[in-house]
Amino acid sequence: MELAGLACATAIAQAYPASSMGGDPTVLICCGPGNNGGDGLVCARHLKFFGYFPTIFYPKRPDKKLFNNLTTQCAALDIPFLSYLPSSSLINSSYNFVVDALFGFSFKGEVRAPFGEVLENLKHISIPLCSIDVPSGWDVENGNPDGLKPELLISLTAPKKCAKLFQGKYHFLGGRFIPPEMASRYELSLPDYPGTDCIVQLK
Amino acid sequence: MELAGLACATAIAQAYPASSMGGDPTVLICCGPGNNGGDGLVCARHLKFFGYFPTIFYPKRPDKKLFNNLTTQCAALDIPFLSYLPSSSLINSSYNFVVDALFGFSFKGEVRAPFGEVLENLKHISIPLCSIDVPSGWDVENGNPDGLKPELLISLTAPKKCAKLFQGKYHFLGGRFIPPEMASRYELSLPDYPGTDCIVQLK
Repeated sequence: MELAGLACATAIAQAYPASSMGGDPTVLICCGPGNNGGDGLVCARHLKFFGYFPTIFYPKRPDKKLFNNLTTQCAALDIPFLSYLPSSSLINSSYNFVVDALFGFSFKGEVRAPFGEVLENLKHISIPLCSIDVPSGWDVENGNPDGLKPELLISLTAPKKCAKLFQGKYHFLGGRFIPPEMASRYELSLPDYPGTDCIVQLK
Repeated sequence: MELAGLACATAIAQAYPASSMGGDPTVLICCGPGNNGGDGLVCARHLKFFGYFPTIFYPKRPDKKLFNNLTTQCAALDIPFLSYLPSSSLINSSYNFVVDALFGFSFKGEVRAPFGEVLENLKHISIPLCSIDVPSGWDVENGNPDGLKPELLISLTAPKKCAKLFQGKYHFLGGRFIPPEMASRYELSLPDYPGTDCIVQLK
């Protein structure tokens, strides 16, 4: 999760350099209740170190040590936590881009409250949206034609089947640190990462 | 520890690129019983992903979940663990360089068995030695004129006072991810890290 979140922050810094933004490079990070949300918290922390101004929306927090620690680390960096999600128009005017760290590859079935409303809200923003691993609300294989349309997709470990349906501008693969045994068990054909980089750009 | 070990592996890859070594880029990593040893285990894992052939010597392993996990991850990558430290001449002929991850900044007092012998052995190698955070056996403030003489020093978080006595070729600072509150509490004056890099070269 630490390396996955670092890869996400690095991909974002490559696609949307802080220096390219007029004014403060603000970013809203929406975190779900599971591991995808944890990746988002780690990503927020690294973005802060990379010179961005992240704000986190994290409505359902699992009471587990790992996630509590990640939340504490963000709070120690003075990253604000929102108690509600702003409207689409307020998001558009307050942030440079949004990170969707709501649901990952294991998401299935119905979206529970309050995430239905969150997804609906994110569908109507006009600033760039970045999704971690799988656009939230997409089926991991079949996508979701009515769902989110991120501009940046950061696949973790390996692109999921639905990544073929991604029509955004940038696609990165992150999380190079997969044991060969796991790569062979899941028949993953992974690209070479350059040098010591933790990400590789696919599109 | 994850980010510290990644920083160490990245600094090593910059100072001693795998491609610059004739034959297999082999590296012996000597890990101590504490956190410095844990950094060494993480460093070994990342070096493997960066194309090196690490071998670990880890004679005193704490029976704690964190360290057990790090050991398991290395074993899953087919990184061999030596049951004894080879002689200086065998080290010279078998490896391209050695990583000293024995003791960190909290080391004080006498060196206990088997580490006295290990340090003595490492003093007599002729291949480059890299020390993590503090050369093992050095006093964190006053160094050790009779101690190890690493060619590469990777300071973590901030250079310790003894780093002023370092006379090797390369000095890197790693672990950029320190909360400002901690930096101000310890009155650390840290250099800027370039872009999304996790290390900065000081020498």
